[in-house]
Amino acid sequence: MAVVDHKKADATQESLHRIFTVPEAPESTLGRIEKEISENLNVFLQTHIAAREKPLAEIEKDFSSADIPEHPSFVSDHTHFLLDKLVAQSVHTSAPTFIGHMTSALPYFLMPLSKIMIGLNQNLVKIETSKAFTPLERQVLGMLHNLIYHEDDAFYQQWMHSANHSLGAFCSGGTIANITALWVARNSALKPDGEFKGVTQEGLFKAMKHYGYEDLVVLVSERGHYSLKKSADVLGLGRDCLIPIKTDSHNRVCVDQMRAKLDELKQQNIKPFAIVGVAGTTETGNIDPLEALADLAQEYGCHFHVDAAWGGATLMSNTYRSLLKGIERADSVTIDAHKQLYVPMGAGMVIFKNPALMTAIEHHAEYILRKGSKDLGSHTLEGSRSGMAMLLYASLNIISRPGYEMLINTSIEKAQYFASLIAQHPDFELISEPELCLLTYRYAPARTQEALRLADPEQREELLAALDDMTKFIQKRQRESGKSFVSRTRITPEAWDRRLTTVFRVVLANPLTTEQILKDVLEEQKDIAKQSLISFPKINTLTESILNQQVTL
Amino acid sequence: MAVVDHKKADATQESLHRIFTVPEAPESTLGRIEKEISENLNVFLQTHIAAREKPLAEIEKDFSSADIPEHPSFVSDHTHFLLDKLVAQSVHTSAPTFIGHMTSALPYFLMPLSKIMIGLNQNLVKIETSKAFTPLERQVLGMLHNLIYHEDDAFYQQWMHSANHSLGAFCSGGTIANITALWVARNSALKPDGEFKGVTQEGLFKAMKHYGYEDLVVLVSERGHYSLKKSADVLGLGRDCLIPIKTDSHNRVCVDQMRAKLDELKQQNIKPFAIVGVAGTTETGNIDPLEALADLAQEYGCHFHVDAAWGGATLMSNTYRSLLKGIERADSVTIDAHKQLYVPMGAGMVIFKNPALMTAIEHHAEYILRKGSKDLGSHTLEGSRSGMAMLLYASLNIISRPGYEMLINTSIEKAQYFASLIAQHPDFELISEPELCLLTYRYAPARTQEALRLADPEQREELLAALDDMTKFIQKRQRESGKSFVSRTRITPEAWDRRLTTVFRVVLANPLTTEQILKDVLEEQKDIAKQSLISFPKINTLTESILNQQVTL
Repeated sequence: MAVVDHKKADATQESLHRIFTVPEAPESTLGRIEKEISENLNVFLQTHIAAREKPLAEIEKDFSSADIPEHPSFVSDHTHFLLDKLVAQSVHTSAPTFIGHMTSALPYFLMPLSKIMIGLNQNLVKIETSKAFTPLERQVLGMLHNLIYHEDDAFYQQWMHSANHSLGAFCSGGTIANITALWVARNSALKPDGEFKGVTQEGLFKAMKHYGYEDLVVLVSERGHYSLKKSADVLGLGRDCLIPIKTDSHNRVCVDQMRAKLDELKQQNIKPFAIVGVAGTTETGNIDPLEALADLAQEYGCHFHVDAAWGGATLMSNTYRSLLKGIERADSVTIDAHKQLYVPMGAGMVIFKNPALMTAIEHHAEYILRKGSKDLGSHTLEGSRSGMAMLLYASLNIISRPGYEMLINTSIEKAQYFASLIAQHPDFELISEPELCLLTYRYAPARTQEALRLADPEQREELLAALDDMTKFIQKRQRESGKSFVSRTRITPEAWDRRLTTVFRVVLANPLTTEQILKDVLEEQKDIAKQSLISFPKINTLTESILNQQVTL
Repeated sequence: MAVVDHKKADATQESLHRIFTVPEAPESTLGRIEKEISENLNVFLQTHIAAREKPLAEIEKDFSSADIPEHPSFVSDHTHFLLDKLVAQSVHTSAPTFIGHMTSALPYFLMPLSKIMIGLNQNLVKIETSKAFTPLERQVLGMLHNLIYHEDDAFYQQWMHSANHSLGAFCSGGTIANITALWVARNSALKPDGEFKGVTQEGLFKAMKHYGYEDLVVLVSERGHYSLKKSADVLGLGRDCLIPIKTDSHNRVCVDQMRAKLDELKQQNIKPFAIVGVAGTTETGNIDPLEALADLAQEYGCHFHVDAAWGGATLMSNTYRSLLKGIERADSVTIDAHKQLYVPMGAGMVIFKNPALMTAIEHHAEYILRKGSKDLGSHTLEGSRSGMAMLLYASLNIISRPGYEMLINTSIEKAQYFASLIAQHPDFELISEPELCLLTYRYAPARTQEALRLADPEQREELLAALDDMTKFIQKRQRESGKSFVSRTRITPEAWDRRLTTVFRVVLANPLTTEQILKDVLEEQKDIAKQSLISFPKINTLTESILNQQVTL
């Protein structure tokens, strides 16, 4: 028995060793499996549906055991399981009909190139585990800095590869980028002063006592991304410290209201340590007046951060970059490469205008990140990080700036086309005009739109609430039917007296989305709506009663 | 001219469209490029050298322009650039002779499987962009929870897929995992109370005033990872709030000293809201007495977090899991799957014992993460995240628990072997014994070791300082020669009166590292040392003068 066990252990040892040593030659088992995966993925990625609908509870059954397997599986068997149960039930985020979120088709060349990233498995926290990947990442940060700030060559020669400096940080996403920016801003605002060793060292409680502020706040448009609230929580400032400022009819922050707030805070001895401008709101894609915000930040001595996670890529377009005028005055900027720079998930960045700013969060250790080293990890919120920067680097080189310009321009113009389609359609209502490639709208039958104009406040509210329910219903039903996907959200349009309104939200970043697809999306929604009016008879009843009432009057 | 421009634009449009639509068939250009990449990577990965040395300043020349290209590159040309300038100058982190950091060879099956992750590009923040990946990630979190806490089936059936709960979070790495754990602990310690809305909402300054604490601190061994200091900074507590507790001769925290500190803090009205136990110190791989720390945490009412980023994988081994006894009483645990669970970079996790704990950091938004949804993003520090969990899922299934056990056991036993090799060698000195697969040591010629025993304090310090310089020299020279790589750090060994001492640090996780390689590493170090004694003649001069002095006496 012991002999058998020993033999078994040897066999396992042998098979484990193989796992780490046998590469994928075309004729090998792994080579065959890879081919199968590629073919399967290609079929999946070329099938233009948003998702094959199966209830989540059903899917959960395939992922229900919390036991770690006691027996190994063959790679081929497990691959089949993954293709059947995972891939087939995943979301086709790159389908041209998937226009509900900020995902898109990716350039196919990233598939083979990502092998380099996965295969080399570099760790960018330090040079010792990344070597050439570190200068590459520093260069990409330099390129993005250049895109935003246009400093001269001498600037980049001096700072891009400087050991004790960093032009920014690669992050897993925009949330970490925003946290990093506000972390730097907070630490700079509460810096060492006399006996006080700074918030970095002594913490917020002592910092506030030292500086004698009543409170510390950040001002941002009411359309700011939810990650800012999360940042405020993490950083110990509290969610209440994020002061939402009203937006105008185009979802852009009202600068006058922000100024008034800043004056009010001054009176109350509350320190506004940062102003955040939004360049591409998550829900409607609008851009704050960045130039005016830069003026305010300068006047009131605040750190000026621009959350351009979405809109930053627009700087690639000579035609549309002026929409972001003023961004070059920001102290820090967030850009997500996995959004409209078309690289896979996990490529956020924060860029700082001044190469010295990140010293506010610098840290060292004995075994790595020693002072004077060029290790990127001394200026990042994260520790170990993958070589994701290389995929952005490759895309910048292969697509080039004019290529990106074309992608950006096409997406914006497609949104303008879709907006005109909606505006012309009697049964749809455009809620927010596209400034970038995002827009919101809803289904509202022509007669109901007329009734809304004539209704008294009570009737109006009743009708609007019914429309909210129907929008939600249509969105869910369309998603479930699996042909196409738009998302939904709730915003407060000025045209409807800032009433919280449920709307369809569309992001048109995928270059494969055609005008015909957009027409079909509306058609499908109209069809679902027609059926749904059976579930929501109230809309017709109310509409007719309001219109009849008018005739009677 | 205008016509030409138009044609050019059309051509670019066409080529851009191709980028997004033409997949990699074996006979296509991309198929050919992929084959070339695979072959190149296989050669690189099978060449057993740590890195081809080229000075960093040289490499930086290839990555020196901050201009985003104005002209597109062909995929094939750019691939060649990457293979020549990036891959060839990267670090072979998976080489069997690369034993300096926590990277290892990866199972080859992860290469084809990672295609699924990259190709599908799911976003795990919400179900709408991840579908089956969400139950899969929840299952993996359940499996890891099970590995640590061994709850019964009913527990996992109730909580694993529960909409308003989360057994933990996937993170980009251990740093984010540690921050998340301390964030939860901080928010739980300063929770809403009467009029006070909690630190989440009102921030630290008001929280401290409400609760009337003088300060808020975390206790951890002086060997705690630097990410904990970073966490303390980010969370607004300040780096000083991290109170380092002395360790014993095995680099394990002294529980008595921690207890004494806790009593002292009580006297000062300082709130120790968390105790961190280290399961696998970064530098020496030792494990704190977790059971005793759990007792302390219970007695003093602190959150008990275990940083098992490295050591957590040891739970897979029936032989060695008892080293972590007490971890099952932790409120939260950090584990990095990209360390000894052998998946690529970017797979950290934090696991919480109590499924309700993460509500302390729960957040929602209008367009996603709505209440009652199963979106994972409502309980994560990060926002958008990739489907990395699937690679761990596949590894857990393909390797299985006994497979992992073999990997863990082999690594620990290899470290024991290497330790005995060093201990037996007259010219080397073992500084820390391996408890897991890490150890530290240095070169010290036999006669110098003897001289050290006889030296007076002044001579001793002089000699030790010279040894520090030599250790640093050897480590650098060995790295530069490119055959093998060990790292170096500075620790305070009890045997040397806690003097800050420079040592070689070795991590033996790579299953392909053979005993012969370990012998060769020592040989190479000895050779470099012999040559280096010309640069450091002081060591011999001092050694001989001390030994002669003794003879004279």
